[in-house]
Amino acid sequence: MTINLCLFGAGRIGQIHAANIARHRQAKLKYIVDVDPAAAARLAASIGASAGDAQAALADDDVRGVVIATSTDTHLSLIEAAASAGKAVFCEKPLDLDEAKARKCISLAEEAGIPLFVGFNRRYDPSFRRLKDDIVAGRIGKVEVVSITSRDPSPPPEDYIRRSGGMFRDMTIHDLDMARWLLAEEPSSVFASGSCLVDPKIAEAGDVDTAVVVLETAGGAFCQITNSRRCSYGYDQRIEVFGATGMLRADNETATRVEHASSAGFRREPALPFFLERYRQAYQLEMDDFIRALAGGEHRLANGEDGLRALILADAAERSRSTARAVVAN
Amino acid sequence: MTINLCLFGAGRIGQIHAANIARHRQAKLKYIVDVDPAAAARLAASIGASAGDAQAALADDDVRGVVIATSTDTHLSLIEAAASAGKAVFCEKPLDLDEAKARKCISLAEEAGIPLFVGFNRRYDPSFRRLKDDIVAGRIGKVEVVSITSRDPSPPPEDYIRRSGGMFRDMTIHDLDMARWLLAEEPSSVFASGSCLVDPKIAEAGDVDTAVVVLETAGGAFCQITNSRRCSYGYDQRIEVFGATGMLRADNETATRVEHASSAGFRREPALPFFLERYRQAYQLEMDDFIRALAGGEHRLANGEDGLRALILADAAERSRSTARAVVAN
Amino acid sequence: MTINLCLFGAGRIGQIHAANIARHRQAKLKYIVDVDPAAAARLAASIGASAGDAQAALADDDVRGVVIATSTDTHLSLIEAAASAGKAVFCEKPLDLDEAKARKCISLAEEAGIPLFVGFNRRYDPSFRRLKDDIVAGRIGKVEVVSITSRDPSPPPEDYIRRSGGMFRDMTIHDLDMARWLLAEEPSSVFASGSCLVDPKIAEAGDVDTAVVVLETAGGAFCQITNSRRCSYGYDQRIEVFGATGMLRADNETATRVEHASSAGFRREPALPFFLERYRQAYQLEMDDFIRALAGGEHRLANGEDGLRALILADAAERSRSTARAVVAN
Amino acid sequence: MTINLCLFGAGRIGQIHAANIARHRQAKLKYIVDVDPAAAARLAASIGASAGDAQAALADDDVRGVVIATSTDTHLSLIEAAASAGKAVFCEKPLDLDEAKARKCISLAEEAGIPLFVGFNRRYDPSFRRLKDDIVAGRIGKVEVVSITSRDPSPPPEDYIRRSGGMFRDMTIHDLDMARWLLAEEPSSVFASGSCLVDPKIAEAGDVDTAVVVLETAGGAFCQITNSRRCSYGYDQRIEVFGATGMLRADNETATRVEHASSAGFRREPALPFFLERYRQAYQLEMDDFIRALAGGEHRLANGEDGLRALILADAAERSRSTARAVVAN
Repeated sequence: MTINLCLFGAGRIGQIHAANIARHRQAKLKYIVDVDPAAAARLAASIGASAGDAQAALADDDVRGVVIATSTDTHLSLIEAAASAGKAVFCEKPLDLDEAKARKCISLAEEAGIPLFVGFNRRYDPSFRRLKDDIVAGRIGKVEVVSITSRDPSPPPEDYIRRSGGMFRDMTIHDLDMARWLLAEEPSSVFASGSCLVDPKIAEAGDVDTAVVVLETAGGAFCQITNSRRCSYGYDQRIEVFGATGMLRADNETATRVEHASSAGFRREPALPFFLERYRQAYQLEMDDFIRALAGGEHRLANGEDGLRALILADAAERSRSTARAVVAN
Repeated sequence: MTINLCLFGAGRIGQIHAANIARHRQAKLKYIVDVDPAAAARLAASIGASAGDAQAALADDDVRGVVIATSTDTHLSLIEAAASAGKAVFCEKPLDLDEAKARKCISLAEEAGIPLFVGFNRRYDPSFRRLKDDIVAGRIGKVEVVSITSRDPSPPPEDYIRRSGGMFRDMTIHDLDMARWLLAEEPSSVFASGSCLVDPKIAEAGDVDTAVVVLETAGGAFCQITNSRRCSYGYDQRIEVFGATGMLRADNETATRVEHASSAGFRREPALPFFLERYRQAYQLEMDDFIRALAGGEHRLANGEDGLRALILADAAERSRSTARAVVAN
Repeated sequence: MTINLCLFGAGRIGQIHAANIARHRQAKLKYIVDVDPAAAARLAASIGASAGDAQAALADDDVRGVVIATSTDTHLSLIEAAASAGKAVFCEKPLDLDEAKARKCISLAEEAGIPLFVGFNRRYDPSFRRLKDDIVAGRIGKVEVVSITSRDPSPPPEDYIRRSGGMFRDMTIHDLDMARWLLAEEPSSVFASGSCLVDPKIAEAGDVDTAVVVLETAGGAFCQITNSRRCSYGYDQRIEVFGATGMLRADNETATRVEHASSAGFRREPALPFFLERYRQAYQLEMDDFIRALAGGEHRLANGEDGLRALILADAAERSRSTARAVVAN
Repeated sequence: MTINLCLFGAGRIGQIHAANIARHRQAKLKYIVDVDPAAAARLAASIGASAGDAQAALADDDVRGVVIATSTDTHLSLIEAAASAGKAVFCEKPLDLDEAKARKCISLAEEAGIPLFVGFNRRYDPSFRRLKDDIVAGRIGKVEVVSITSRDPSPPPEDYIRRSGGMFRDMTIHDLDMARWLLAEEPSSVFASGSCLVDPKIAEAGDVDTAVVVLETAGGAFCQITNSRRCSYGYDQRIEVFGATGMLRADNETATRVEHASSAGFRREPALPFFLERYRQAYQLEMDDFIRALAGGEHRLANGEDGLRALILADAAERSRSTARAVVAN
């Protein structure tokens, strides 16, 4: 049976989801809705879907789920509308920049009895999933220290920075979700510090572009995160997990496995340039899982609570940064 | 404009090509033909194409090209039929196990004025293509020694061995094409030796399962190939190219970039299991190029002459093996 | 001209220094002094030196320098004696566990006009020295984040823990020196947290066995350190330095470059087991540099001030751990 | 008890052996003999030995063994003299460029009842020894294909080439010994081809600078060797051993484990420059083993027969090159 879906948002992420739904045997993207109807129409044409309006889409009984890939400030109202219409929701992170509103998203979904998933795509990266599976299989014993390196190739535009909620809520939030996912236990304390080393405009916007974060669980396990908004050698996405009996490390992906030897030494190519390349497969597997979930199958999607927890940690990181002390996260 | 295609052969390779055509925006797989009509129908159903018969397909003016993925002994007659019908041909390797018949394939295509391409998919592997591009760009100077390691995970069934034309024509032929592609010059001499170390049934069938080959060009460049029908750590597909000013090496692909450290050391996962996994992307890029070629675009497909040359080298290897001397290939 | 030296301490580190002096063309180990004269005699015999007593050694005008490899609580009095005798001093880290006494060591040396060096051997590890040289040569631009992973294979005996001054002063102090050496600027703030995950006896002794530390400079650069007293895959000693235009990473050393492939994947051997193996060459180069310094040559030895600074950072880490806040280090 | 030795030859290799003997606790280099007495005196002075003349050295009952590191054409007469004097012999490879003379060396030693060892230092390289040990331990099953890559950084002077006996006897001979050592069985057939791609002067001298060799055993195992007299990325010394249940590969050594990441990718340093650096430890372990052998201990030194066998294979390679056919080696 075909799973009919509606996509909100025809931007960069929306296009990825649209292509992944279009390619899926069991799914059909019945509607694409965007505040810019021309954008929706263009995307619809390119993949053989049809543009539509929100009301019609949500009123259509054939539609089983909605994918929300719009700007963050619209998430709550779209989740509310989807919940009213009884549609399952897959929402891009973050649910909202405000904790109360994020909680509202979750309670709306709960009251309506609809599943609410949050797009933490990195959980679907094959290398990171291998970490998780190996941890769960006990291959490194009890997890003691998770170390996450996460650096963007170059900073986003200044106006994006201003709307982003700050580096911790915008960028680190992915790493905070990874930390929660890989640590056995919920982090209970957060220390964070940041500085502006890349672009003074980021400091002017009140934000940082370089940061380190330390999470600690009640059981004494740690996660250290290092972030930068700029990286010369590609999109630096690495994770190490140190456990009582072993360690796992996931190195960066490259386009090929070619090494070039010369008098300058042995050179491999840079890491994949950015998230579209690095997480191409992750986005695909994630959307497959959403479709599987709608079909009643097993899935491993992050849910609303995961979205909220990561936001709470990001908020705690922000508070820690301004107080120079470890902050209790709850 | 949509490029309509007809696929002959609904077996393992045919299924790959079918899926790659189905996924392509510009192409449509209009017919799938197989000696087993049920197999054709199953494949057609799974990708939304329709099964058909050869005559109807070749008579259909909408069909621009045919993809031949049938057993080798049918290639010549299918090429003949396609040539009569004026359809461009993409034929799996080898054109034929017999040199004269392979030449016949080429002349039929030439007389009919149709393009004839041969499926040397490895030319589309991103790592091997990087080797080629870096060589052409002069990044290692003049090519002096190409070293190819090519090992299958496990031997094929005995009856496949008996029909295969022998290891050199069946398996090494891919490496011989790689050698021609990466060496600047045509190999002029072939030395080969083989033995049966994996399965005595292969020796009973008159074949070898382990082989080494040395090619030499008139200019004094070499290629060494090592083959085995069995490999414990996956499908071993590696190439090194040593040049006057540098060296390129393409290592095996693995599913993830995770390393597991323990008291036993640092362990990465085995190489991808076999050609379906390793050359998944190569098959896709190859079929994209066939469709591009039909649409009048630039392409890098191997042609009939390439198919013939590789076969001539394989024949020479076979002769060298039985005479223990280097054989002139021409 | 031969440089005559006296060694205090015939224990594990003393033996390394003795062998390195004995092997040196320009140096002669004239005296070995130990509280256990038999130990001194055994070591002296094994390398062709002679055991002696402290007074005679310090009174001998031929002796140019002393190497102090005794227990930490004897450092101050030995430095005092050497300073009185006008001998240059190479002292194992830490100068003292008490900041005031460490300052006293420095002032005694200054007043006597003798050079005082501290044994931060890791500065002589060829890989770490390459990091330093590449940073100084501007190969990664301005240093932004130093990441140090430093894990011992297994915890020391309980009584060592009790006398050690705690993990930060005993073990992390090496990493703190590395951080100072690789950061362009002095760290001004320290955050540290630790837990006891390896052995509850360590907690009973009031210490931790697992720790993370974050250092920050006034300029906004960071260093993150992760420590453990137990590591399954050898002595884990790695450093990454992230800069504005590049990144350097020094991976662990292994005894060979052999990789073993099997159905379980590709396996390299564990990291070298502990500091004697990993820093064998570093100890040698360090002692060479001390002898070079005594001969009036250029050297790169850490001095008393470096020893003090690392101790101050360790003290700050300890304070941070008990207050859960970043501590100003000065 | 001290093992007294006499060294013949104060050249490059002689100096290595002299230093390794000087550093050894149990050994004493009592005499250094060279056709150039000043060279002998200089080397003797630098390591605290004494120069001497051959007759006196061989007449000295204290001398247990001689190390022959002179030019190849003097080996036979020195072995003869040492045999007459009843001294054990360690002789650099090759025993002689002429098979009959090499056999003579062996029979002289046998008749005199002295041990005769040949300096195939690569057997002592830690990585290659690991290959051997892992093979013997059955970790890859039956050995099927050994692949040796062996490239010098740059060609030797023309007059060296002319005296060298040709590339196979001079350079490949090391690889031929490695092949014998790592294959379970004696190679019975040799195919070789060579060309001159590096320097036309080498062709003028009748030699080649680029070569490939294929060895085959009666049991059907293979060894492929690739050689060049020039390599841009250092001294390229790698071996792979493919077996029925696994594969071992020994990659090149580098001075550090540092990787430099930048927009150009991830770069490691070149391989160690040449044999003095790459085989520094191997030379040391080899001489240790000679001294151990003289002291009656267990050792793994190559003997005269090994020297002869490698020469016979080199001769066969030379014959194969001129006949373009596989040559039986016996």
